[in-house]
Amino acid sequence: MTYDDQNIFARILRGELPAIKVYEDDQVLAFMDIMPQAEGHTLVIPKSPAVTLLDLDPQVAAYTIQIVQKIAQAIEKTLDAKGIVLMQLSGASAGQTVPHVHFHLIPSSVHELGKHAAAMGDQDKIKALAEKIKAAL
Amino acid sequence: MTYDDQNIFARILRGELPAIKVYEDDQVLAFMDIMPQAEGHTLVIPKSPAVTLLDLDPQVAAYTIQIVQKIAQAIEKTLDAKGIVLMQLSGASAGQTVPHVHFHLIPSSVHELGKHAAAMGDQDKIKALAEKIKAAL
Repeated sequence: MTYDDQNIFARILRGELPAIKVYEDDQVLAFMDIMPQAEGHTLVIPKSPAVTLLDLDPQVAAYTIQIVQKIAQAIEKTLDAKGIVLMQLSGASAGQTVPHVHFHLIPSSVHELGKHAAAMGDQDKIKALAEKIKAAL
Repeated sequence: MTYDDQNIFARILRGELPAIKVYEDDQVLAFMDIMPQAEGHTLVIPKSPAVTLLDLDPQVAAYTIQIVQKIAQAIEKTLDAKGIVLMQLSGASAGQTVPHVHFHLIPSSVHELGKHAAAMGDQDKIKALAEKIKAAL
């Protein structure tokens, strides 16, 4: 699939848009979803340009899932979460809203999730939580 | 988390219970979900014992996500799917029903999914589809 380098995650990666970051290295960025489906909803994205998981370089996918594990562990610790939903939507018809591959980590029951990308969250609360997750990493 | 080696996926891995397999190697097994949330619903599991993604050995997670990518590509090709949902539920409160880490691949819109593990599917139809996915790998 053709990659649109003006998508909002590409712009966040270039520093053109802000993000509440919890983790960053040379290959991966993790930041808070500003329209959370549950408290602690975090996104993990590889920095290399790929639209979906199907397009993503397998070596990058392998590294990214290991960071997903680490962030999930930090979220579990921070929120004393009893369960975590990992969701990765490939394709607009699957509910993907930003055309840069991203992994959702949502500490919640799958049956109680708010609708995907439905409403803005309390940004101050999200920022405070991000600090706690960073500290737990 | 303590691993219960009598869970149904452990029994499938030992050959004690049947499964409609689409892929198997020394580390990973992929098979059709017999209670599909959509046509083509496939499960990918590492063979090593782990309850959740948080417990899974990072090296095994890295390999497993690469097989998830391959299976997703085969599902896309087989069903001409426009979108694929990857879902991985860690913890009963997140909706995990079998205590062995598993990745769901569901070719569907996330907002149109049937409820998780709600009803048996047409097993003959599922078997026929499995053959097509195997052929597409």
